[in-house]
Amino acid sequence: MTQNLFPSWPDVAPHLIEVAAGRRPAETVIRGGTWVNVHTREILPNHDIAIHSGRIAFVGPDASYCTGPETAVIEAKGRYMIPGLCDAHMHIESGMLTPAEFARAVIPHGTTTMFTDPHEIANVLGLEGVRLMHDEALMQPVNIYTQMPSCAPSAPGLETTGYEISPEDVAEAMSWPGIIGLGEMMNFPGVANGDPKMLAEIAAAQRAHKTVGGHYASPDLGPEFAAYVAGGPADDHEGTCEADAIARTRQGMRSMMRLGSAWYDIESQITAVTEKGLDSRNFILCTDDCHSGTLVNDGHMNRVVRHAIACGCDPLVALQMATINTATHFGLERELGSLTPGRRADVILTSDLTDLPIELVVARGKIVAESGSIKVDCPHLAWPDHARGTVHLGHALSQSDFEIAAPTGANTVTANVIGVVENQAPTKALKAELPVQDGLVEGHGDICQIALVERHRGTGGVTNAFVSGFGYSGPMAMASTVAHDSHHMIVVGTDRAQMALAANRLAEVGGGVTIFRDGQELALVELPIAGLMSDQPATEVAAKAQKMVEAMVACGCTLNNAYMQHSLLALVVIPELRISDLGLVDVTQFKKIPVIESTP
Amino acid sequence: MTQNLFPSWPDVAPHLIEVAAGRRPAETVIRGGTWVNVHTREILPNHDIAIHSGRIAFVGPDASYCTGPETAVIEAKGRYMIPGLCDAHMHIESGMLTPAEFARAVIPHGTTTMFTDPHEIANVLGLEGVRLMHDEALMQPVNIYTQMPSCAPSAPGLETTGYEISPEDVAEAMSWPGIIGLGEMMNFPGVANGDPKMLAEIAAAQRAHKTVGGHYASPDLGPEFAAYVAGGPADDHEGTCEADAIARTRQGMRSMMRLGSAWYDIESQITAVTEKGLDSRNFILCTDDCHSGTLVNDGHMNRVVRHAIACGCDPLVALQMATINTATHFGLERELGSLTPGRRADVILTSDLTDLPIELVVARGKIVAESGSIKVDCPHLAWPDHARGTVHLGHALSQSDFEIAAPTGANTVTANVIGVVENQAPTKALKAELPVQDGLVEGHGDICQIALVERHRGTGGVTNAFVSGFGYSGPMAMASTVAHDSHHMIVVGTDRAQMALAANRLAEVGGGVTIFRDGQELALVELPIAGLMSDQPATEVAAKAQKMVEAMVACGCTLNNAYMQHSLLALVVIPELRISDLGLVDVTQFKKIPVIESTP
Repeated sequence: MTQNLFPSWPDVAPHLIEVAAGRRPAETVIRGGTWVNVHTREILPNHDIAIHSGRIAFVGPDASYCTGPETAVIEAKGRYMIPGLCDAHMHIESGMLTPAEFARAVIPHGTTTMFTDPHEIANVLGLEGVRLMHDEALMQPVNIYTQMPSCAPSAPGLETTGYEISPEDVAEAMSWPGIIGLGEMMNFPGVANGDPKMLAEIAAAQRAHKTVGGHYASPDLGPEFAAYVAGGPADDHEGTCEADAIARTRQGMRSMMRLGSAWYDIESQITAVTEKGLDSRNFILCTDDCHSGTLVNDGHMNRVVRHAIACGCDPLVALQMATINTATHFGLERELGSLTPGRRADVILTSDLTDLPIELVVARGKIVAESGSIKVDCPHLAWPDHARGTVHLGHALSQSDFEIAAPTGANTVTANVIGVVENQAPTKALKAELPVQDGLVEGHGDICQIALVERHRGTGGVTNAFVSGFGYSGPMAMASTVAHDSHHMIVVGTDRAQMALAANRLAEVGGGVTIFRDGQELALVELPIAGLMSDQPATEVAAKAQKMVEAMVACGCTLNNAYMQHSLLALVVIPELRISDLGLVDVTQFKKIPVIESTP
Repeated sequence: MTQNLFPSWPDVAPHLIEVAAGRRPAETVIRGGTWVNVHTREILPNHDIAIHSGRIAFVGPDASYCTGPETAVIEAKGRYMIPGLCDAHMHIESGMLTPAEFARAVIPHGTTTMFTDPHEIANVLGLEGVRLMHDEALMQPVNIYTQMPSCAPSAPGLETTGYEISPEDVAEAMSWPGIIGLGEMMNFPGVANGDPKMLAEIAAAQRAHKTVGGHYASPDLGPEFAAYVAGGPADDHEGTCEADAIARTRQGMRSMMRLGSAWYDIESQITAVTEKGLDSRNFILCTDDCHSGTLVNDGHMNRVVRHAIACGCDPLVALQMATINTATHFGLERELGSLTPGRRADVILTSDLTDLPIELVVARGKIVAESGSIKVDCPHLAWPDHARGTVHLGHALSQSDFEIAAPTGANTVTANVIGVVENQAPTKALKAELPVQDGLVEGHGDICQIALVERHRGTGGVTNAFVSGFGYSGPMAMASTVAHDSHHMIVVGTDRAQMALAANRLAEVGGGVTIFRDGQELALVELPIAGLMSDQPATEVAAKAQKMVEAMVACGCTLNNAYMQHSLLALVVIPELRISDLGLVDVTQFKKIPVIESTP
């Protein structure tokens, strides 16, 4: 196993003491900065930071007594020295990047610590997939902790994942060096109902003294919420309004407020602090999900802190929410999250605490980024072949695999149709009258076909149904192996031959996203690792994703976030109607329903 | 081993969930109180708390849905519901009481959690003594965590303790169920100098993910302080002024501010919060040392919180400093320190947040005190015989054991004399000309004799010297087996025969404090356990201690805190001059000096 475990404070304490006492020169000194102290919430000009063995040895007005001829000196020139930023909850896979390439993309934005839940790969490769992510995470020059995924499958009985996560898996993972806790416990009805499997996973994390991540995605703050809280989750990032944030912190959970590529939950919740005056220590910032385009064009945790400040939060309080508050939550307060002795020397230099330009990033005592450019290697894991070959179709698909037979003699049928709703994750369960040709039900108008192609076990299974809302026209099809949460393959198309082309193409490249029109591939994003991630740089992946968006528009798609809408159509935990490898699922009743409701 | 381990949150989560969901009635409901929320720092009227299995299952405006016919209902009648108070650092032995009797004394004052460092017994009985304290602590109906003592002896090479604590002892103790961290690391010069033994003890605690207690008793905030911080201690309670508190919190340590029987360090430090506006989360209240008389007459943590409020601290902030801040510091934030689901149901009812009358105390869901009266049993450990028979003199002492021979032919000598200073712990190193009679040096005026009688190994060793400042007159002697930190026996007297009587008397009763005049015992406090503690109630011990004070006055003593002055005369870590079993010790130079400096 390739790992890069960072020496602990006690491992290097003798050196730190010698530096602080003036008996040994520091390896690096950052000189003449303004110390942003997130413990006391103070700004202290004219301070130096002395570093040895990747950790801070001394912070004070004058480190010249521990500066020697070999000491590397970084001149802060009065700029603010702030701790490296922490992302308290996120999924690396959302960037379609490996941990290494994700790290490379976000380090120049000042993110030096991430708490990552590899939930997506857990559905494809199980515990081994989590371990691979964990191992590559530990190879990076910044701190990437792993939250052990808790809910694969997300909806037991309604879908078949590549692998399942058991309480035994959770207990085993708790002993891994990079595991920091349990990933978001999404099965909140299960916890509230006392599901023994969910409680066993929580117990395994609690007994290992790890943090249990929460996910309570309901506006109901009554007994179900109370029962969920009593079950043990320590935080929640699913709050969307001030009342959610207040309820969670009052009950002793930490409120994680997110700004992702498509999540905007800070402005509506931070008023709990800025207006209601609640103690800010229990509020934490995170991204949850960021696309590579966001990382390339907009930033990462610097974007989030900046946004919190723009929402009226005091800059020092906002910085606490992305540093010490996060560290305290995960039991890492003496390891990182502040610029004080013993901690990892993760330091950002910035000349403005509101705009937060990330001018220099130091991680573990080394310069890792400067003026937006990465200055360090982010090593890649040697991903095993079976992690790169995860698209198993059983046989090459043909257009007949996508046929939906009509009842004998019918000329039209009434079909259940998944209705995509602009700018919303929930879908509508629609009914539509569809024509029959040659014994097959056909799409009509804005209604086209959707297929869930089994890809984990090579069963050859294809679930066919109908979807509306994309606006596609002309013979086209789009396919993706990013298909939350079980990550089979979703194909949406107006033409069965194009659907087969698209599906087979993804099998050929090992997964990703493709779009075909008139037999031609218009765009392709290869995601060879687990069908979820690329090990190419974020700039390249973002450029390909941008071409994909343009191709969807060219095919007539009118939706904002059309690709995300596509990839969520199998998410059988969000109402109203979804598709899985087991059939069409009514998520208001958690049961399967037929595609063809009736014939006239 | 007798232990009363409290079921963990995951052990009882299924019950808590059922109560919160309304599927099972609570065992107890506290109805109609005002919820003091130390997470959000809010006061929320009209709330109920539902309790099951000793833990909080639900807090909300109406717990009637989880109240059944068998549920015990406590009517709060609008009173404030605050979390049980936490003492962040203290020595039970300072109360001259066993853990059981200490608990019985403080529970009516609202203290439901204590972080105790059994440093004194460690010097007498070593690791086994710590284990005995730890075991009796775990038998109590409140939470008594043990900090593993780090420094026995306090001054290696300058004294001989009954036992020594090694890094291996520390590592072993870290696996005990009640160990919460390392006790105050008093050897701050050792840490700053990189002493491998001290660093090994700190490392053992850090590697076990436990909290390392600090003790930096110096006003020097220069490189020695910086080196100590770099060594790893996470808190410090030795600060005495605002600058100390600010320096510690800026460096990422928590500032513990104490109000003990003789410590008054809150008023001078809390201005860091009340005037300088530092983030209050890193400030914590503690007592460090309380005599039984303080517990009987003045209170415990309620006295401390009340005092902090009287010093200008917002009551909610002061309560946070004695509840959630403490819990967070020790990694127990999800176990206690707030009134929220999953936590131990440790609740105080009070009708005033400033005067803080402790009207009802609930611990682990049971009423443990009401209107100042204890309502629960505090079980005693069966202390083994060898813990009760720790005064080993080797032989019965006679007055000849206390003779100080003069150099042959001298009529007077110049002696080094320990000068006790009113209201201060440090002594003065004095020189005095003393008369010689029959070849023996005699006290004169206010200068009388002091002896350190070896009592751990029965060597028969007696170190004799002189002390001034007590004001004793007439033939008398006072002896005590409480003799910080090595806890041999200190005898102070004007008459060698009385000194022998006093010493032999303590050997007879197994330790404690006695005072003799003219052959009569004026007062006695028996401390049979390790010569340090009584297993009698605090009221009885306090009454005996009061008689001792009166007897000292009757013998001419004019000092405030005269008994404490007596018991600190062997504390060879505080300047300037002390006595140990190895001789007279100059604590400014850390070396032994002769009693007789010269002859004229």
